[in-house]
Amino acid sequence: MEDPGQYLTSMRQTAPLVHNITNYVAMNVMANVLLASGASPAMVHAREEAAEFAGLAQALSINIGTVSPPWAEAMEAAATVARAKDIPWVLDPVAVGATAYRRALGARLVELRPTVIRGNASEILALAGEAGAGKGADSTESVATAEGAARALARHSGAVVAVTGAVDFVTDGERAARVANGHAMMPRVTALGCSLTGVVAAFLAGQPRFEAVLAALAYFGLAGERAGATANGPGSFQVAFLDALHAIDADTLTAGARIETA
Amino acid sequence: MEDPGQYLTSMRQTAPLVHNITNYVAMNVMANVLLASGASPAMVHAREEAAEFAGLAQALSINIGTVSPPWAEAMEAAATVARAKDIPWVLDPVAVGATAYRRALGARLVELRPTVIRGNASEILALAGEAGAGKGADSTESVATAEGAARALARHSGAVVAVTGAVDFVTDGERAARVANGHAMMPRVTALGCSLTGVVAAFLAGQPRFEAVLAALAYFGLAGERAGATANGPGSFQVAFLDALHAIDADTLTAGARIETA
Amino acid sequence: MEDPGQYLTSMRQTAPLVHNITNYVAMNVMANVLLASGASPAMVHAREEAAEFAGLAQALSINIGTVSPPWAEAMEAAATVARAKDIPWVLDPVAVGATAYRRALGARLVELRPTVIRGNASEILALAGEAGAGKGADSTESVATAEGAARALARHSGAVVAVTGAVDFVTDGERAARVANGHAMMPRVTALGCSLTGVVAAFLAGQPRFEAVLAALAYFGLAGERAGATANGPGSFQVAFLDALHAIDADTLTAGARIETA
Repeated sequence: MEDPGQYLTSMRQTAPLVHNITNYVAMNVMANVLLASGASPAMVHAREEAAEFAGLAQALSINIGTVSPPWAEAMEAAATVARAKDIPWVLDPVAVGATAYRRALGARLVELRPTVIRGNASEILALAGEAGAGKGADSTESVATAEGAARALARHSGAVVAVTGAVDFVTDGERAARVANGHAMMPRVTALGCSLTGVVAAFLAGQPRFEAVLAALAYFGLAGERAGATANGPGSFQVAFLDALHAIDADTLTAGARIETA
Repeated sequence: MEDPGQYLTSMRQTAPLVHNITNYVAMNVMANVLLASGASPAMVHAREEAAEFAGLAQALSINIGTVSPPWAEAMEAAATVARAKDIPWVLDPVAVGATAYRRALGARLVELRPTVIRGNASEILALAGEAGAGKGADSTESVATAEGAARALARHSGAVVAVTGAVDFVTDGERAARVANGHAMMPRVTALGCSLTGVVAAFLAGQPRFEAVLAALAYFGLAGERAGATANGPGSFQVAFLDALHAIDADTLTAGARIETA
Repeated sequence: MEDPGQYLTSMRQTAPLVHNITNYVAMNVMANVLLASGASPAMVHAREEAAEFAGLAQALSINIGTVSPPWAEAMEAAATVARAKDIPWVLDPVAVGATAYRRALGARLVELRPTVIRGNASEILALAGEAGAGKGADSTESVATAEGAARALARHSGAVVAVTGAVDFVTDGERAARVANGHAMMPRVTALGCSLTGVVAAFLAGQPRFEAVLAALAYFGLAGERAGATANGPGSFQVAFLDALHAIDADTLTAGARIETA
């Protein structure tokens, strides 16, 4: 892909208001990741206002990590508004295969036609109706195992599907690409996958979705690489990661992105 | 103002139990900020106990960031107890202009006569019935724009109103002052404004409110200045900020506070 | 105790899925602490799935810090499943003495026969029916004051009871031991006690409970000692603490553990 840095530049110029209905574990990290990246996060989940607020934002992310019925209602209401107003929205189907409740909610949200679905291999397999319950929020499958499921899910749902892991796989059902940026410490820090979903949403505001997803994934992984170069463990990694998200500019991203057509 | 450090000393000697009904994004940071400052935070929101708990605390803070109806009921019950028992309480009207639900709740809470209202310019404008919906939790207006609204809101509500931003403005409707401490990185870290509300509540316990608010704002901003002097980005800023809150003593605060009558 | 490091090795080999129903303040820290330690955390609380999920995990922790009735129902359902399936579960009775609501819930959870109860002195005193309401989540009593209550609670409940503080006290009602590892900065960082409860749960998976609790407490305290040796305040302490949890291996734990029969 040519010049992925341009999508970072554009995102920062827009500084999109990103509406996130996400899990309790991720909220703070996700807000900090979005602020460090240059977006403007808002966490709003009450049924009394989620739909109204969704109409004010430039992008929406929905994450089912610690979902319960009132939150699920807000998710469905907000996604419906986003779809109607052509606001891009991203689904993060955390641990969707783990329980009957999650499987049913995941299926309902896919029917609301997310712009992008981002999950780990176990989650994409489960959402596509294949095996892969995973181990809570952690994947037990490799990305490669889920490539077929990702293509099928993209065709069925109309979404761009991103399977993230050591090397990410992204497809719109026809095109596909891999993003090799990242660092081995990232799965040892909670909520980084959830936060990435927010960054994907931020990049989607006003940009072509397939390219925006690739650029967002490369940007996030590159920040991980920079953090990993100096960190002594998962604590110092988190600190350096936020600093890196803030420091990376368009040229650095274009130079460091490792995106290849699949 | 003479010797703002005395209010820090007094707060630390009291080590007040501060009851916070706040948003999910801010809870952890706010608890850490209060602990680093020398107060004792508690987060209690269930309707079954919030009012009882409010009566045990030395100060109460209420933040509507991720509010939903059960939480709103607890907020109103706790504020009612605080008011009845003369326990100081601080209102943080996050994004109050954004939706109809927030506007209605904000108005109801103001009727419960907060001791202090702390918000950004957009929020104070919205609460005073003027424009300024803001961009989620982020202000789109300068502090100066909201000075008239702050004075009017202080007179209407009986609260000391603090509009925070690059230079803070504080008024009780008659007196007014500005606090110039702070650092440009602070808006790039989530929940610092929310955490400041907790620090204001801690300073209020047993102290004159106008002076306590000014001292709290100067203390918080001074910690930001110290953190900003060494930070490489928003990740390392957060770390250095908590260390600075812990390290600053009364003399340092008195020497570094930049408070001026307005 | 001989070779406490073996329990760390075994925990890391199992990499147990630990199901946590915990408070909003602690969720992120607890997940990061468990990941840094080598376990796999999951936070699931909806009544619609908590019991089903509890049956999938290797250990369960329940923390009443920011509880409300729907969460309490999920706690009771999950604990019932854990008990029926012989999955170890740990109760963290945060501020259990503070309100009537908490006292009633604490008593109901003890009836569901936790494998381990971990609290500060005020909480263990309150749970044993003695004084010690404490100051929110912070203890106002010394560990020594609660030793008799801990023994009585262990006998009544069938749980191993761990009273944590400057020097921890652990008893199954007959045996007792003290763990002296730790650092004075730990109470100045929020949710470390809550996170320790998760680590205790992780160590319990497939291991003898009295020894597993002692090893978990020594491991956690030793990480605190290492963090305290380099930290400049509570911010840098948190960072160094997560790094230390990740870095400490079995030999280091065995060499550094300070566990003595009481």
